[in-house]
Amino acid sequence: MIAVKRDGHVLGEHQIDWVIDAYTRGVVAEEQMAALAMAIYLNGMDRGEIARWTGAMIASGERMDFSGLSRPTADKHSTGGVGDKITLPLAPLVAACGVAVPQLSGRGLGHTGGTLDKLEAIPGWRAHLTNEEMLAQLEGIGAVVCAAGSGLAPADKKLYALRDVTGTVESLPLIASSIMSKKIAEGTGSLVLDVKTGSGAFMKREADARELAATMVALGDDAGVRTVALLTDMDTPLGLTAGNALEVRESVEVLAGGGPADVVELTLALAREMLAGAGRDDADPADALASGRAMDVWRRMIAAQGGDPDAALPKAAETQVILAETDGVLARLDAMAVGVAAWRLGAGRSRPGEEVQAAAGVELHAKPGDRIRLGQPLVTLHTDTPERFERAAAALADAWTIDDTGCDLRPVVIDRIG
Amino acid sequence: MIAVKRDGHVLGEHQIDWVIDAYTRGVVAEEQMAALAMAIYLNGMDRGEIARWTGAMIASGERMDFSGLSRPTADKHSTGGVGDKITLPLAPLVAACGVAVPQLSGRGLGHTGGTLDKLEAIPGWRAHLTNEEMLAQLEGIGAVVCAAGSGLAPADKKLYALRDVTGTVESLPLIASSIMSKKIAEGTGSLVLDVKTGSGAFMKREADARELAATMVALGDDAGVRTVALLTDMDTPLGLTAGNALEVRESVEVLAGGGPADVVELTLALAREMLAGAGRDDADPADALASGRAMDVWRRMIAAQGGDPDAALPKAAETQVILAETDGVLARLDAMAVGVAAWRLGAGRSRPGEEVQAAAGVELHAKPGDRIRLGQPLVTLHTDTPERFERAAAALADAWTIDDTGCDLRPVVIDRIG
Repeated sequence: MIAVKRDGHVLGEHQIDWVIDAYTRGVVAEEQMAALAMAIYLNGMDRGEIARWTGAMIASGERMDFSGLSRPTADKHSTGGVGDKITLPLAPLVAACGVAVPQLSGRGLGHTGGTLDKLEAIPGWRAHLTNEEMLAQLEGIGAVVCAAGSGLAPADKKLYALRDVTGTVESLPLIASSIMSKKIAEGTGSLVLDVKTGSGAFMKREADARELAATMVALGDDAGVRTVALLTDMDTPLGLTAGNALEVRESVEVLAGGGPADVVELTLALAREMLAGAGRDDADPADALASGRAMDVWRRMIAAQGGDPDAALPKAAETQVILAETDGVLARLDAMAVGVAAWRLGAGRSRPGEEVQAAAGVELHAKPGDRIRLGQPLVTLHTDTPERFERAAAALADAWTIDDTGCDLRPVVIDRIG
Repeated sequence: MIAVKRDGHVLGEHQIDWVIDAYTRGVVAEEQMAALAMAIYLNGMDRGEIARWTGAMIASGERMDFSGLSRPTADKHSTGGVGDKITLPLAPLVAACGVAVPQLSGRGLGHTGGTLDKLEAIPGWRAHLTNEEMLAQLEGIGAVVCAAGSGLAPADKKLYALRDVTGTVESLPLIASSIMSKKIAEGTGSLVLDVKTGSGAFMKREADARELAATMVALGDDAGVRTVALLTDMDTPLGLTAGNALEVRESVEVLAGGGPADVVELTLALAREMLAGAGRDDADPADALASGRAMDVWRRMIAAQGGDPDAALPKAAETQVILAETDGVLARLDAMAVGVAAWRLGAGRSRPGEEVQAAAGVELHAKPGDRIRLGQPLVTLHTDTPERFERAAAALADAWTIDDTGCDLRPVVIDRIG
């Protein structure tokens, strides 16, 4: 099989089923799967191979079933970016419109944050639920954000860990099958993909992001999950915060009817897609936000997982402000640089399992298009460990452009695919 | 480093040194080296990378030193073929001409035989010598054929085992560096490479064999080892036997002044190159063969390693003769088919460590160009386990062509490179 892919041929359906099963059981060794993964990285897989590969990974574990719920389900997946706290306001918002949101989430690695890390900034909140607790919360409250159990797509878990150390992460077929095997195994009825492109995204080039989005939409539809993708901008961070507690605070502002315009816009756009996918085109998420119904669901959702929605969020022991050194218009604010700065301040981790600081992160005081005056605060750095300021500031050395040539930004939602 | 090669770039010298050392020490994991090996397989290495890679594998272990011997040294390496028993007459022949031959050899795998397996058909002969025994035999007798110690190029041993299970064996840079790291670490002063091409060879296509030969000659010369390669035919088996005891018998016939013409021709051609490389252009190997001096060295060499040169060789319990079904000229006799048949009869092994039958193998009664008569014996199969006859005969089903269109054969020695 390694030789088949190495030589540029198409893997057979039974070959794919066999290798995923045998790898999960330990019959195919790590070094053999590593060689196969590199051959896939370099020679690709066609749509048929990707679909079979995804199906084999789903079949490697259990598949959840929400068909017993009294309402339809919709799920969202983001390919990850900087300041991407959208799941926090989105899940209760969609639930407030009558669609159940079973959001199995992960932790951050490198410059991108993780939804579970963010919610753990709320005192008392816990990420791990049993399947029964999850179903009860979905039925009773309508939204749950929790850690994925180990029974879903175990082949993907094993393969992802292998890809992480063998230079085979950035492969479109392997990315698409990894994401979609987990999301399909989670048993949602419909799925909205937020595929990001830009400096802070996994896919820097828009063409790659489009191809990934189209591949994943086809995989979802083939598996009977109504799937649509929004292609969204990640040249600029989302909102004005990157960091766990800082992003919770901003999410609560959105649920309270405020918050940064781009976060509100993307939250509503994704909510509309999720509602449409679940057959609730009639619902009005803007109203659910304005009326406070989404906030009510948020408070119940947090409390159901042990969190105190009224508790003060952690504040960093130290802050440092960076001032503008010139007048002009903020023409560019680089998402990757902000993400790396937040990571270096303690908000992110370099290896799975590392602790993160709840209060660390980057707070932005301006967004591209804003007029800047010499000496005004541009960015505030937050950390409990001030020795981290220097390296965080270094990450931001070339993070923005301030001039008078104007600002040509992409919209938040670039395109809709599906 | 994996990403560098994956993306088609050139590995740095320090990167190569680091990865070979770290892999040998277990710091780079098997799955990481597997991914790198596949990236090398698909994206190649340039001459500079191959040279550094080879040097790093040599540096992973000890390097033997024969400079204290009273005579120059010359070694030979064959890329492997069917019926390739040339080392057996060649080593004593070159020693008889005053050049020491330290021939560290291996065992067979698949359709190709191994020199150690062949010599172990001689009652009492043992393959394992200490370094001191080897040096003493080289000084006293001039020729030694024995197993390589585990201290030579341990990185190559580990990497070869990995390549064997990850579909990365047939990579020119990895083949060239594997062969040359062992041969250079063995400390020979000059080296002759027998690079085979044809159906029974590793390199089926002549162009690939030429490229491999040129790469290895450059690696040897760079490392200060005078190196030359003969490009030789392996469409047809060498000689009239494939199998351990059968090939010993044929080798002794050559040393006695007889034997098949192609074996004699190639033995003399390689001997002349080895003698020239060691500065003994004046020696006459044909005379050493005709005079019995080579046979004398053979007898002493076998006896020094516990073997009885006068003992009867093992004979197979069962034989089966295949007769010609038509008249005509034998136009083709396929080396790969004969090699597979010998393997299936018990002469070869499917996995390292498997036992082989000393007496099993294929005996040929005609060679391409010979006129064949209906009903004459073409091939005799030898085995101790007659249930093997059927699958061996099946391997030979399309092994030859007998017709009257004539026979257009390549010479035994196709070219000289270096």
